[in-house]
Amino acid sequence: MENLQRGGNMIHPWYVTGLTDGEGCFSVSFNRRAKLTIGIETRPSFSISLSKRDYELVQMIRDFFGCGAIRFSRNDRTYKFEVRSIKELRNTIVPHFKEYPLAGIKQMDFSAFEEICELVYNNHHLNRDYLAKIIKLAYRMNPSGKRKYKQEELLRMLDEVKR
Amino acid sequence: MENLQRGGNMIHPWYVTGLTDGEGCFSVSFNRRAKLTIGIETRPSFSISLSKRDYELVQMIRDFFGCGAIRFSRNDRTYKFEVRSIKELRNTIVPHFKEYPLAGIKQMDFSAFEEICELVYNNHHLNRDYLAKIIKLAYRMNPSGKRKYKQEELLRMLDEVKR
Repeated sequence: MENLQRGGNMIHPWYVTGLTDGEGCFSVSFNRRAKLTIGIETRPSFSISLSKRDYELVQMIRDFFGCGAIRFSRNDRTYKFEVRSIKELRNTIVPHFKEYPLAGIKQMDFSAFEEICELVYNNHHLNRDYLAKIIKLAYRMNPSGKRKYKQEELLRMLDEVKR
Repeated sequence: MENLQRGGNMIHPWYVTGLTDGEGCFSVSFNRRAKLTIGIETRPSFSISLSKRDYELVQMIRDFFGCGAIRFSRNDRTYKFEVRSIKELRNTIVPHFKEYPLAGIKQMDFSAFEEICELVYNNHHLNRDYLAKIIKLAYRMNPSGKRKYKQEELLRMLDEVKR
């Protein structure tokens, strides 16, 4: 897929990578989930957030990837394109950024993200040792981002899970 | 110029356009200058601001365009690539965004910017009627940006200039 038509306009794969180096975010969040045997839910996601004036562009991004959802964030008045499905992350998002790599520091986040997606896709996040590895990888990403738990807290929760 | 080498890495023209839709800024500022016959200085500029972690990427952008300067902004802890020379804006920056157009709402800023650069390049900003036109065009751009003067103030200053 070299280009994508939209009312005569084109969006190029390299354009999407450039925009992502600016406004994209690869993240992996964790939540306590008593219902899960492992006790912790692993949630990788990819998103691009743009000002509400740029709704059309957000739609072009979704059309480009052919997956994901768009939602409006009242907090920062942005539209966010977001992909959470592990299948779509692993089979669509990751391959795009391998073929058209990021040029900025975000490439380091992507490397960890790619590794985590592969582990989660293969259900390794349900295994204690692998999950510890995933947590450590994830906490190297987006150092400026907010976290619900500290890394040590998550690893301690994991230690409490019966083997 | 399809690609640019940097330690084995490539930066693609479409990548630069995508990054610009995220982090770029086309702006035209005005300053009162008693020394000028017209009384008002017109200063168009193009910039891309990135987190200080992304200094290498800022350098790649400068190398890509082959013009402009990099400076660090202490306020927002970013590196800013900036082009102010009207010759470079008109002969390098504008042609890039005509060949690889922006896909977002920033395209509207660029349209006004392109028109203003052409007028300034031909010294029309030293003519009262053209400068009034330039001011009106400029004030349609970046509606969220801060301005030193209100549009009416500038137009009033212009009225005070003896014909």
